Amino acid sequence: MGHPTDAELETKEMDLRSMSNVQAEYVHKVGIPPKQNLFKEFKATMKETFFADDPLRSFKDQSGSRKFILGIQAVFPILEWGRSYNLAKFRGDLIAGLTIASLCIPQDIGYSKLANLAPQYGLYSSFVPPLIYAAMGSSRDIAIGPVAVVSLLLGTLLQNEIDPVEHAAEYRRLAFTATFFAGITQVTLGIFRLGFLIDFLSHAAIVGFMGGAAITIALQQLKGFLGIRKFTKKTDIISVTHSVFTSAHHGWNWQTIVIGATFLAFLLFAKYIGKKNRKLFWVPAIGPLISVVLSTLFVFITHAEKHGVEIVKHIEKGINPPSVNEIYFSGEYLAKGFRIGLVAGMIALTEAIAIGRTFASMKDYQIDGNKEMVALGTMNVVGSMTSCYVATGSFSRSAVNYMAGCRTAVSNIVMSCVVFLTLQFITPLFKYTPNAILSAIIISAVINLIDFQAAILIWKIDKFDFVACMGAFFGVVFVSVEIGLLIAVSISFAKILLQVTRPRTAILGKIPRTTVYRNIQQYPEANRVPGVLIVRVDSAVYFSNSNYVKERILRWLTNEEENVKSDYQTKIQFLIVEMSPVTDIDTSGIHALEELVRSLEKRGVQLILANPGPIVINKLHASNFANLIGQDKIFLTVAEAVAFCSPKLVEEA
Amino acid sequence: MGHPTDAELETKEMDLRSMSNVQAEYVHKVGIPPKQNLFKEFKATMKETFFADDPLRSFKDQSGSRKFILGIQAVFPILEWGRSYNLAKFRGDLIAGLTIASLCIPQDIGYSKLANLAPQYGLYSSFVPPLIYAAMGSSRDIAIGPVAVVSLLLGTLLQNEIDPVEHAAEYRRLAFTATFFAGITQVTLGIFRLGFLIDFLSHAAIVGFMGGAAITIALQQLKGFLGIRKFTKKTDIISVTHSVFTSAHHGWNWQTIVIGATFLAFLLFAKYIGKKNRKLFWVPAIGPLISVVLSTLFVFITHAEKHGVEIVKHIEKGINPPSVNEIYFSGEYLAKGFRIGLVAGMIALTEAIAIGRTFASMKDYQIDGNKEMVALGTMNVVGSMTSCYVATGSFSRSAVNYMAGCRTAVSNIVMSCVVFLTLQFITPLFKYTPNAILSAIIISAVINLIDFQAAILIWKIDKFDFVACMGAFFGVVFVSVEIGLLIAVSISFAKILLQVTRPRTAILGKIPRTTVYRNIQQYPEANRVPGVLIVRVDSAVYFSNSNYVKERILRWLTNEEENVKSDYQTKIQFLIVEMSPVTDIDTSGIHALEELVRSLEKRGVQLILANPGPIVINKLHASNFANLIGQDKIFLTVAEAVAFCSPKLVEEA
Repeated sequence: MGHPTDAELETKEMDLRSMSNVQAEYVHKVGIPPKQNLFKEFKATMKETFFADDPLRSFKDQSGSRKFILGIQAVFPILEWGRSYNLAKFRGDLIAGLTIASLCIPQDIGYSKLANLAPQYGLYSSFVPPLIYAAMGSSRDIAIGPVAVVSLLLGTLLQNEIDPVEHAAEYRRLAFTATFFAGITQVTLGIFRLGFLIDFLSHAAIVGFMGGAAITIALQQLKGFLGIRKFTKKTDIISVTHSVFTSAHHGWNWQTIVIGATFLAFLLFAKYIGKKNRKLFWVPAIGPLISVVLSTLFVFITHAEKHGVEIVKHIEKGINPPSVNEIYFSGEYLAKGFRIGLVAGMIALTEAIAIGRTFASMKDYQIDGNKEMVALGTMNVVGSMTSCYVATGSFSRSAVNYMAGCRTAVSNIVMSCVVFLTLQFITPLFKYTPNAILSAIIISAVINLIDFQAAILIWKIDKFDFVACMGAFFGVVFVSVEIGLLIAVSISFAKILLQVTRPRTAILGKIPRTTVYRNIQQYPEANRVPGVLIVRVDSAVYFSNSNYVKERILRWLTNEEENVKSDYQTKIQFLIVEMSPVTDIDTSGIHALEELVRSLEKRGVQLILANPGPIVINKLHASNFANLIGQDKIFLTVAEAVAFCSPKLVEEA
Repeated sequence: MGHPTDAELETKEMDLRSMSNVQAEYVHKVGIPPKQNLFKEFKATMKETFFADDPLRSFKDQSGSRKFILGIQAVFPILEWGRSYNLAKFRGDLIAGLTIASLCIPQDIGYSKLANLAPQYGLYSSFVPPLIYAAMGSSRDIAIGPVAVVSLLLGTLLQNEIDPVEHAAEYRRLAFTATFFAGITQVTLGIFRLGFLIDFLSHAAIVGFMGGAAITIALQQLKGFLGIRKFTKKTDIISVTHSVFTSAHHGWNWQTIVIGATFLAFLLFAKYIGKKNRKLFWVPAIGPLISVVLSTLFVFITHAEKHGVEIVKHIEKGINPPSVNEIYFSGEYLAKGFRIGLVAGMIALTEAIAIGRTFASMKDYQIDGNKEMVALGTMNVVGSMTSCYVATGSFSRSAVNYMAGCRTAVSNIVMSCVVFLTLQFITPLFKYTPNAILSAIIISAVINLIDFQAAILIWKIDKFDFVACMGAFFGVVFVSVEIGLLIAVSISFAKILLQVTRPRTAILGKIPRTTVYRNIQQYPEANRVPGVLIVRVDSAVYFSNSNYVKERILRWLTNEEENVKSDYQTKIQFLIVEMSPVTDIDTSGIHALEELVRSLEKRGVQLILANPGPIVINKLHASNFANLIGQDKIFLTVAEAVAFCSPKLVEEA
């Protein structure tokens, strides 16, 4: 080591001065917060867990009748915002509603195919649910109806149970059952304020899942797009590619391909225009309807259906028939419907809440997640009784809704009215619409779900997130939507478990000319204090990590002792544990600390604690641990702890 | 508010001085750690997760042949400690081994009844597994063999599948299959270094589970103790009580009760003596064997078996027959055996590791959890092939082993030899042993598993832990062992999920005459800085909590703004987020921060960050968030951040 330089001496002197300063004037006791009684503590925890958003805030200090009105308004927000509704707002909503209606009608017909249902069911699902949502929902921008991913998921899960072609009626009944339970799931999560459960699907997993689902959906469209009659029921890329190529010789229909390709090119071009000039957002929005009209006319005139171009053929006319009697409330399909509904309901919820939050933060209004779930759930329960399948918020249509200048949920009502008129009067005209057009519309719609930018950003920020993203993506593409979902959820959970099992620890050093102690890895200029090891534990100490934390600290100590030995420095005599980030500790944690003290004693090292939080200090006292190490060994800051150790060190050195 | 007092003015002046001091001299940049390459980073994470204890440490810088020897020694620690074994150590081990042998023989016979197996299988399991463990294990104090809780668990799970009386052969085969897979599970967890998984069963849950299991086991003994012939197969307290009382009139046998009660009183008295005087630990240790000998003699002489006193009747003579052929490696029982083995293996592991850790910390030596698992697993795999059922470390016998002065695992070898001799020569003598004695022995053994002190301590320290403890306890007592276990695991997980979903946040204030900022709830003397809100987030910000954290911060701000308004104080213009405890952030977290910035902008509040850690600062840069809020808005300490805000505030006020 040699002699210290002047600069070092100076630093040391300053340190000592500031230390003695600290000791002389500034020693503060670690505060012990007033003891709360058990009930109060429990109430506070419950409130923070389930009522974090303080939903009853506005009810405080109100009269009984006022509370009743507020309660009704809480369930039906339309009664609140409806009172200040005016013509200016309606103009925005009308235009937006007409735009999303023109977009949703062709999409609905296509999506119902993904769910293996007849085309009218898609339209049904764009009629009733938006009306319910408009009355109960709190998002102003979301566009309600069937969406691609949920349709595909529902279709896949349902056809695992019942063949949709051979047993069409039972299949449909199971679909309504699943929709019913999807709604029940959503309402239940909302009422019991368990909305936070959907947060367990991480953003990264959703990006991967959506991208994978988009590719799977696009691949499924090859059937309609190429005019293939015999097509695999599996959704993985290998089965589909195999199916496409084995049918290449005799299964493809060139007329279909020409029509499909032409209109796909048109749709993608319309999308491109909309992207280039944001004012022309309506071009891609009405593109699908124009394609449908033009292609239907074309087929009608040329009678292309006689040359193998598959057409829609038949859409039931009239509005939703009741379907309460069709729901399975008993028998083996009850449990299956419940299971499928649970999964589909959760995914639908995830999508709707994500959309709601995104647009709410863009226009800066608040969305109550749990209330939203009740609204979405109610709409699906009612939907299941009126021949609808699972509806939720659509990313693409909500974006169009927003750009078209919607002001309130009235745009959903407008869309619903247009769908109503369509069902009543126009459906027979879709007879000659070629399936290839629907496929082209779906392909152009789902392309947006593949979010390269997001994936790249995830890669940049967090590699583990990227693994989750890719896991979900490849799971969906190469196996199936369920497996992809399972992978996404598993990886998300694994990450949480890792977080609570292996918390980070850091060695702290003193930043020169301050009394601040920081991670020496991040601040290489920080100096270690001779004879003292300062470790920061970066997490609550719970049963899941208490052993690890104890062993990690001992390992830091062993490493340090070896270094010190080889450098002939002062032997480590004090271990300061900086507890600031330790927000809580449980019985296992206390046990681990006790074991730590015992091990340290054997090595002749004293344990000192710095800045335990309110809950931790209470528990250290309750468990008598504070007396075990000595009340005077707990300090407000690391600096004060060091000031306590350093003089004692000199004596022993 | 009125005019400030002199004291306040003084404080303010000091604050300003210290602030300007800080600003003038001490502004440090937040360190950005050197960027690691991806592979290095990945390697470090993997190492910390799976090789936290650095098991290959001793292999470093060694020659090839030395590495080989070290490798062999790592698998068979006996080769290492055996070389320094001596007579002094053997004396200790011999006495300890004889003591635990005398304790284990009657216990084994009783426990095998809990597992619904013939008595000799308990003895078999105390012969082979201890030998294997002695060669491979690293604990010096653990006593290996069948234990009450695992026997009960195995018995319950197995009889759900096969009736142990009607199909005894199949039942036994399934037991071996389960044992085989219990071993495989343990070895797998050890080899893949997943030992941390057992940490997910919290200490509190184990206390409750063990207590409940003890009561259940004691209740089961009423059958033998009261001489009841018809007894329920269920284990819950209600069924058992019902069964006991309905048989009261004609099913109880007074001779049995007299014998059982006498010896139970004797055993409990022996226990009491052992507790009073720690030197007499051998009294309770040999009590069971004495009871067996005396009661057997008594029955043999009086021929009490002819008066309805049930006796053991027959124990197979000779050592373990091979049972490889009996394991189900195919068919429906394969999956069932695997499932049961998985559960039993995990519970056995939890018990063994807990024992190993406890005694290792008492004698201050290290135990490698993952290596232990490999040893325990191997011993069960070999055991399943030699007619043993799941063996693990026994709490009661390990304590006796420790107190009898064992020095190494040789005490297990001694015990195993005694069991060998017993199997070869003495088993026929157990013919007249009354079942009531075995029941009395089991009751007096499991009483120790009920740990009131621990439960009271848990109540004092952590109420949530207490709920887990009681949940497991009542689940076992009132329903079944599986349900109790399920409740224990579920509550443990719920706690983890709660922790990661609802992290704590705190408002910080300045502690007078320092530059230290602390939670104002814990330190009521801490002063808020006018115009500035300082929030500390107490957890990593991940997808599971990012939304909550964002909304919670905004809610603090709303509250604070209302307070400020009603008090006519300076409007909040800066929000300082203290990031010290935020050890990591993922893409969802970055998104939440971006949304926070947007919301704050709308309210005219600037976001300032204090002390982001190494990983967080890297990600803030990678995601360009640092530029979004401005590089100069990130400070090393809260004090520096306040020093930055305060002058700007004055201009605007």
